[in-house]
Amino acid sequence: VIAGLFCIMKIALAQLNYHIGNFKQNANKIIEAISAAKSNNADLIVFGELAISGYPPRDLLEFDHFIETCYQEVEQIATQCHGIAAIIGLPTINKNAKGKKLYNSAAFLNNGKIQSIHNKGLLPTYDVFDEYRYFEPADSFECIHYQDKKIALTICEDLWNVQSNAIYKNEPMEQLIKEQPDFMINIAASPFHTCQQQERLSVLQEKATEYNLPLVYVNHIGAQTELIFDGNSMALNAKGEILATCNDFEEKLTYVNLQDNNQSLNQINTSKITLIHKALVLGIKDYFKKLGFTKAMVGLSGGIDSAVTFALAAEALGAENVLGVLMPSQYSSDHSIDDAQQLADNLKSPTYTLPVQNIFDSFMTELATPFKNTTFGLAEENLQARIRGAYLMTLSNKFGHIVLNTSNKSEAAVGYGTLYGDMCGGLAVLGDVYKTKVWQLAKHINKDKEIIPENSISKPPSAELRPNQLDSDSLPDYNLLDAILERYIEQRQSPQQIKEAGFEASTVDKVLKLVNINEYKRFQTPPILRVTKKAFGMGRRMPIVGKYLS
Amino acid sequence: VIAGLFCIMKIALAQLNYHIGNFKQNANKIIEAISAAKSNNADLIVFGELAISGYPPRDLLEFDHFIETCYQEVEQIATQCHGIAAIIGLPTINKNAKGKKLYNSAAFLNNGKIQSIHNKGLLPTYDVFDEYRYFEPADSFECIHYQDKKIALTICEDLWNVQSNAIYKNEPMEQLIKEQPDFMINIAASPFHTCQQQERLSVLQEKATEYNLPLVYVNHIGAQTELIFDGNSMALNAKGEILATCNDFEEKLTYVNLQDNNQSLNQINTSKITLIHKALVLGIKDYFKKLGFTKAMVGLSGGIDSAVTFALAAEALGAENVLGVLMPSQYSSDHSIDDAQQLADNLKSPTYTLPVQNIFDSFMTELATPFKNTTFGLAEENLQARIRGAYLMTLSNKFGHIVLNTSNKSEAAVGYGTLYGDMCGGLAVLGDVYKTKVWQLAKHINKDKEIIPENSISKPPSAELRPNQLDSDSLPDYNLLDAILERYIEQRQSPQQIKEAGFEASTVDKVLKLVNINEYKRFQTPPILRVTKKAFGMGRRMPIVGKYLS
Repeated sequence: VIAGLFCIMKIALAQLNYHIGNFKQNANKIIEAISAAKSNNADLIVFGELAISGYPPRDLLEFDHFIETCYQEVEQIATQCHGIAAIIGLPTINKNAKGKKLYNSAAFLNNGKIQSIHNKGLLPTYDVFDEYRYFEPADSFECIHYQDKKIALTICEDLWNVQSNAIYKNEPMEQLIKEQPDFMINIAASPFHTCQQQERLSVLQEKATEYNLPLVYVNHIGAQTELIFDGNSMALNAKGEILATCNDFEEKLTYVNLQDNNQSLNQINTSKITLIHKALVLGIKDYFKKLGFTKAMVGLSGGIDSAVTFALAAEALGAENVLGVLMPSQYSSDHSIDDAQQLADNLKSPTYTLPVQNIFDSFMTELATPFKNTTFGLAEENLQARIRGAYLMTLSNKFGHIVLNTSNKSEAAVGYGTLYGDMCGGLAVLGDVYKTKVWQLAKHINKDKEIIPENSISKPPSAELRPNQLDSDSLPDYNLLDAILERYIEQRQSPQQIKEAGFEASTVDKVLKLVNINEYKRFQTPPILRVTKKAFGMGRRMPIVGKYLS
Repeated sequence: VIAGLFCIMKIALAQLNYHIGNFKQNANKIIEAISAAKSNNADLIVFGELAISGYPPRDLLEFDHFIETCYQEVEQIATQCHGIAAIIGLPTINKNAKGKKLYNSAAFLNNGKIQSIHNKGLLPTYDVFDEYRYFEPADSFECIHYQDKKIALTICEDLWNVQSNAIYKNEPMEQLIKEQPDFMINIAASPFHTCQQQERLSVLQEKATEYNLPLVYVNHIGAQTELIFDGNSMALNAKGEILATCNDFEEKLTYVNLQDNNQSLNQINTSKITLIHKALVLGIKDYFKKLGFTKAMVGLSGGIDSAVTFALAAEALGAENVLGVLMPSQYSSDHSIDDAQQLADNLKSPTYTLPVQNIFDSFMTELATPFKNTTFGLAEENLQARIRGAYLMTLSNKFGHIVLNTSNKSEAAVGYGTLYGDMCGGLAVLGDVYKTKVWQLAKHINKDKEIIPENSISKPPSAELRPNQLDSDSLPDYNLLDAILERYIEQRQSPQQIKEAGFEASTVDKVLKLVNINEYKRFQTPPILRVTKKAFGMGRRMPIVGKYLS
């Protein structure tokens, strides 16, 4: 057999939805995929980074028992690898005297055994990633020899030390290329944000053409609380053209022959708002499935945020499984109640209506002494929101629905929300979606028919906690606010830079101060589904007592 | 001048309480200390790691403007350094093409200028530390030459790659020792936990004797939200004997002549419970001071947790600034109300009494339809706690007190608490103190006179949310529970290991499952003052949807 001529390798890209720490389920999925790939005469099947444990396992990696279980499961999986080889990610123990205790590794399985272990060299430790918290970076790399081919195997970030942002001194492919490999495989756990699909494709294309080698890239799909993995596993030829993909946001087993250039070339081309929509639906679906819940509850105000959250939940869980709770106060307008009910009716979802007024009055009666000689203000406004929070949580405790939080990113940024009130819930669906994007999402949801009442989209936003209240009483117009927030949060511009871009100085100072003094509120919000490059939560870690631009 | 004989260097150890991002205040403190040290004829003054910004600045380090400001402030401070030199920590820019954008640095200031910059080599990235998130590790190290002396300057972790736990391959002192330095200086930001003072001393002694050099060690004091810095800056001679210290938990300027062996030798010797007490009081004090607040509020149940929280707050803020709020429900016993009132009376603190019953009844009236044919259970129990949460937050919004959370670590671990109810507040004072330690703390607080009513200490713990409820109805005895939790959380033992240590299998499985399924609750709790090696919060990062031992 002359290498590269007669030996045509058929490779299966296994894009699966793993569940962190759920070893039996992950192993079963992996074994089923191996079996299916073998039936399809594949020579090699490739799974994602840390597939056996799910990604990110976070501090579960600090438990020896967790690490041992990972290894044992992969050993078991290896026993299925006869007539087919597999590559699968797992954590392994660093047996050297110095350095961190673990490696982020890939195992090459063949002939019923773990044949070799390959360790990750570049450990992303920024934004949502904490890999150097756990792993020692590898500094030596070797190709896999299989069926007369040499495979340059790398793990996710190993390929990402791109020219424009070379944050690592090391370069795993520089070692591997010396062995003159036939093609590259990169196993990944690369979460979604709206620019990630284009950025990822351009990195993979850069590397395929730089090394003049075909590249097989296998990613996870599925959501692990905040992080949503979009998949988009793919195979590229040495020119960087797409030979095959696994699509986005779904489990998929795709086959490719790297030597076969007759396959149709694919392209990735989806609008950002469509991507956000798909990501959020998957984020909700997996949060419930992985926690073992089926029913959600949303407080419906008649406003745009709760309407969009509700519609997304209905899509993810089935409209019959999403309960709308209308909790009008004396300041709620009639149209708000009508709009909220109309939304639920459009979807045929159940509702409860629970007024706030009587409970609010009970509080005021009890608080009469301490509140003597004070006037209606923030305390009373927030109390209405907190009564609503208590309603939702009490229903949740009684009936087992998870409450979905409806705060958007603009509100979360400036602290325009009530802790334990509208900021309650198990998962924040829109917490990484600016208000201006929420409107776009609403229109996108309504593109085929009106699900969200037009009035919820078109009316001026209001918290309705005092008479005739409008968001614009306290905040700049959302177009202006979101533009300033995006410059500060995503781009990390200085006040001076933002002002020089044409924004009014006093508005900029006010907004940045609001962002910084509200870290204490964001600290206690539910986990937020991440769809941008910089979401609140694990990817943005700020001191609470800090005093900066505030 | 013959080095080491006639030139006796007088060194000032400046142990200061910095405020993250509060550049003007930090710079003023530093300049005042330089001025005082100069008046005392010191040759050199040493400040802590990242002193100019406060530690940890976290993602503020991602703002170019923040980094530039740090450098400008240190340049300004340098202008004060005439006739005295200074060493001070700051972040600086990595000008190399590859690697992370920043270094964690120390500047040597003399003759009115920044004379040299020295970068940190070992970057702690575990537990509460995230340094590789921001910084490139330095790989070359040079001594400072000053007054005919060579000073081996390192930054915190640079000295901590100890034999028993060598998680780094590099060793900065191995390079520096080749220059034959006269002594070592280590500037640090080393937060407190109950074992840290002993561990720190033993590391410093190991290094002083290993290199046979005197060692000056300067740490921060003060709390930055969760992290409490205890100080304990010190100078050791080459035998590892303590020549001088700055004490713990207070700002201090201490002077030392390393050549002077006539100074009295000091020892560190304080009981753990005394340390926890000091740490928590400082933690509360700084949280309020750094946020600009003066008054706290605590919901007083008559139980031990709220009593201890209240007493600590009274010590930190003045008893007159701590408001006790008694919120009895129909299930509260008379003695609970009496005990709560007695505590406030002992301290001469103000109280409000706000019953829960009428508001609870209002909720039940409104919920009559959805709750038809259901029986009193968890939903109704939690509702009482949430009414209390709403009371506290409403009073907080009205009068500007910060609510202190009273949950202990045992409860937080097993999820024995109500989200948005008793889990509310701005800061969790006892969230890293197991229940069994809370009792010890109560007795310690009462050591001179009875502050906490004896009955609050001696009675069996109860949430009093249903008739005759006791914690022991749902949980193992706290001695047993805490022992299992400590093995799982602090020591990260496997179920098997804990069972083999003699704990009943079903109890172990139940407790570990409770810990793991309650990550979602802990995600939304207030920041917790850290006093152990493994506190809930930033130092323990767990997946919410994970399924492991659950």
